[in-house]
Amino acid sequence: MSRAARFSPDLPLYTQIAERLLEQIHAGELAPGARLVPERVMAQQLGVNRMTLRHALAVLESQGVLVRRRGAGTYVAEPKIERHAARLVSFTSSMQQRGLNPGARVLSLECRLADTLLARELGVPPGTRVYAVRRLRLLNSEPVLLESFALPAARFPRFERHNLGKRSVYEILNKEYGVQVVRARQSLEPVVASEYEAKLLGIPKGAPLMLEHRIGFDQAGQPVEAGHDLYRGDRFRFVTEIAPLEMG
Amino acid sequence: MSRAARFSPDLPLYTQIAERLLEQIHAGELAPGARLVPERVMAQQLGVNRMTLRHALAVLESQGVLVRRRGAGTYVAEPKIERHAARLVSFTSSMQQRGLNPGARVLSLECRLADTLLARELGVPPGTRVYAVRRLRLLNSEPVLLESFALPAARFPRFERHNLGKRSVYEILNKEYGVQVVRARQSLEPVVASEYEAKLLGIPKGAPLMLEHRIGFDQAGQPVEAGHDLYRGDRFRFVTEIAPLEMG
Repeated sequence: MSRAARFSPDLPLYTQIAERLLEQIHAGELAPGARLVPERVMAQQLGVNRMTLRHALAVLESQGVLVRRRGAGTYVAEPKIERHAARLVSFTSSMQQRGLNPGARVLSLECRLADTLLARELGVPPGTRVYAVRRLRLLNSEPVLLESFALPAARFPRFERHNLGKRSVYEILNKEYGVQVVRARQSLEPVVASEYEAKLLGIPKGAPLMLEHRIGFDQAGQPVEAGHDLYRGDRFRFVTEIAPLEMG
Repeated sequence: MSRAARFSPDLPLYTQIAERLLEQIHAGELAPGARLVPERVMAQQLGVNRMTLRHALAVLESQGVLVRRRGAGTYVAEPKIERHAARLVSFTSSMQQRGLNPGARVLSLECRLADTLLARELGVPPGTRVYAVRRLRLLNSEPVLLESFALPAARFPRFERHNLGKRSVYEILNKEYGVQVVRARQSLEPVVASEYEAKLLGIPKGAPLMLEHRIGFDQAGQPVEAGHDLYRGDRFRFVTEIAPLEMG
């Protein structure tokens, strides 16, 4: 039952196979979480060789459309959650708006002395006391984000007494200390999961992660928070919309 | 010559080692491209065990600060080039502004029929003729970005005659066709390099890449370009600045 005749000679075969699978996914014929038929069977159905099929699957896997689980086959990935890269939105509230149930597990909370780098980011002298927090953020109980941030301790006394397992940090800063994070400098970098990060996030070592580095500023332009967040690449996409062009 | 006494008991040892290395890099004591002393030697110098040191190096490697080359040691990475995620800036002109010499190698240019997905992105009926281009973008002759984009052929007749090895696409659209890309919808996703992508970009398979998906619109709000770009994660960082807060 070869369908090879339906491919065009104008385009690499693997691209056409990848596009056909993408169309089936977008049309809902292949639902999120669905398992693809084994490679051997699919190659036969399409009338292509397995190397070509693997190339097509690798392209879709690299785009996060498919997920390969070792020894268990290839699955259609869940649609990614969109984060707005150019806006500063609380994780808690934006996930709730999507009907998802956000949670947090505090991995560590300590009061320590800022090293040179962190001190520079927070605009304080090195050796200044800071609260350093690491949280694992959950969506519907699944770990999706490894969060790590620091705040100057003098500005946020007794920060440790707030319920970081339940509350948004921005909400705590605002309601308990009257500090609003009104702007931030953020950067996004693709990185791969270390063994430690992989274990915490329940993903394979080497899986793609988005590293978001962020410095948040209050109304007076004072830095109040420095964070390093690692988002699961199979669950998030960072979107920027409607941007003016700078020609050159 | 153990210096273990200089570590604080308040923080995991590997974090302190990572931060110390980061400081040396930021202070210029370890320059971009510099090779670190062998693990065995460094562990001895610091008075820590090799597992702890490896953990610290893995953290910095996952952040793109260090690069490990199999069998050749660990090096300080080149500082990353910043791209503005919330602005639409020509690659050519923004790299020139940085004093870098951008180049391009056209991998393929074909006129083909749009599949359903691409047609939807470009706002044309499926089967509409499009130009599809793949270029490898270079900086100072080093491949850094694998670019792939499509344009509706009817709108840009004889697009193939322009020198895509030399010119910016936005500049061609503007000067030759009077079309300005004035806004775009972009998304950023971390992915890992397939064997094919790795070979083209001169990086290891599985290295982190930033996938930028972009639809560009003209003055009338018509989509004129749909692109998928893969940026080397070890060379680029995507920055967004000064963003208003949405509280919730």
